[in-house]
Amino acid sequence: MQMHCYSSLMPRQVDHDARRRLIAEALWRVASRQGLDAVSLRHVAAEAGVSMGMVQHYFTTKEDMLRFALETIGERVAQRIGQRVAALSDRSDPHGLVRTVLLEMLPLDEPRRLEAHVGFAFLARAAVQPGIAEHLREQYGQLRDFVAGQVRVAQLTGQTAAELDPDHEAVVLLSLLEGLAAHTLAGHRGPDAALATFNRHLRQLFQTNDLSTR
Amino acid sequence: MQMHCYSSLMPRQVDHDARRRLIAEALWRVASRQGLDAVSLRHVAAEAGVSMGMVQHYFTTKEDMLRFALETIGERVAQRIGQRVAALSDRSDPHGLVRTVLLEMLPLDEPRRLEAHVGFAFLARAAVQPGIAEHLREQYGQLRDFVAGQVRVAQLTGQTAAELDPDHEAVVLLSLLEGLAAHTLAGHRGPDAALATFNRHLRQLFQTNDLSTR
Repeated sequence: MQMHCYSSLMPRQVDHDARRRLIAEALWRVASRQGLDAVSLRHVAAEAGVSMGMVQHYFTTKEDMLRFALETIGERVAQRIGQRVAALSDRSDPHGLVRTVLLEMLPLDEPRRLEAHVGFAFLARAAVQPGIAEHLREQYGQLRDFVAGQVRVAQLTGQTAAELDPDHEAVVLLSLLEGLAAHTLAGHRGPDAALATFNRHLRQLFQTNDLSTR
Repeated sequence: MQMHCYSSLMPRQVDHDARRRLIAEALWRVASRQGLDAVSLRHVAAEAGVSMGMVQHYFTTKEDMLRFALETIGERVAQRIGQRVAALSDRSDPHGLVRTVLLEMLPLDEPRRLEAHVGFAFLARAAVQPGIAEHLREQYGQLRDFVAGQVRVAQLTGQTAAELDPDHEAVVLLSLLEGLAAHTLAGHRGPDAALATFNRHLRQLFQTNDLSTR
């Protein structure tokens, strides 16, 4: 009985979530084309093909809507990373693990291009909006700690030179990733070239002192 | 006589240049606060404290104005780099030369923060505007060739491991610089931390095979 009652409520709940996602995805597209400053409730409603009233039903302010769009794009990336990591044959290999996680943030196909575009729009916004800055800084810190931790594991197993500073290498890797993404989006280099640079840098990091294979 | 005629024309010429620069600088401030999509002739006129008519006298379209603002900000950075390089005691040292040039692109003080902000606004614009993309790609190519060339010089003099690929190292360094700048602007890390990462990465690049000093 309890079960039945719950089930009867489900469609409505799903519908709400789906609508909020529909609106968030419309926001992503507007932001990726024109930047976050062009985002308005009206503009997003038109892009989503719904009424202003419906957008206002789910998001009372533009800031609410931005926050939700930022969180959901982060969840989308996290979900894909989870799937890729689950599919790894060896999750204990630091090189493969770091590569699998960070590759989901390089704009190598259309979904990742959209995410990177929106990501940069939010990064630009962070300079003037403390709430967004804090959210992004927290994500950045988690990712940096994850990479530094994997470099430490690699040092213990002799896959990385013991003399390297894991925290420094993590910061360099995340900055490199951000810059490669920006230069790929701007068209300075193609996705294949960006991927080759990324792979080569990782190979240099996850090796011992032997430079001959660089 | 020729000289005198030329002189009498000078003030007017200087005035034109000064006004165009005044307008360009107003555009930089608007773009750094709100992004390039917020830039309009009207908005820039208000920021510069001049009439719409005066802006239209110098720039017939928004694109003209954007192009001029992009070029002048590039010139401003190039001029500062020229001064810093001229002040170097040893211009034949690749490490010092590369460091001096690239440091002018890290947002370590207010002028460089403004430039980096505007630079990112144009980089984001490059994804949708081929003219801007081409201009930025050309600058990127020149900088990459300069860095790769200096790595080659350092290899010849034994300051850099001969096994490294100069083109790869140049791409990594420029991507790292871009990412560090973005993360500094967004507040992920402070200017001092960004500078320390940049310096350390350069020290690792401009050394031979000895990892013990990393």
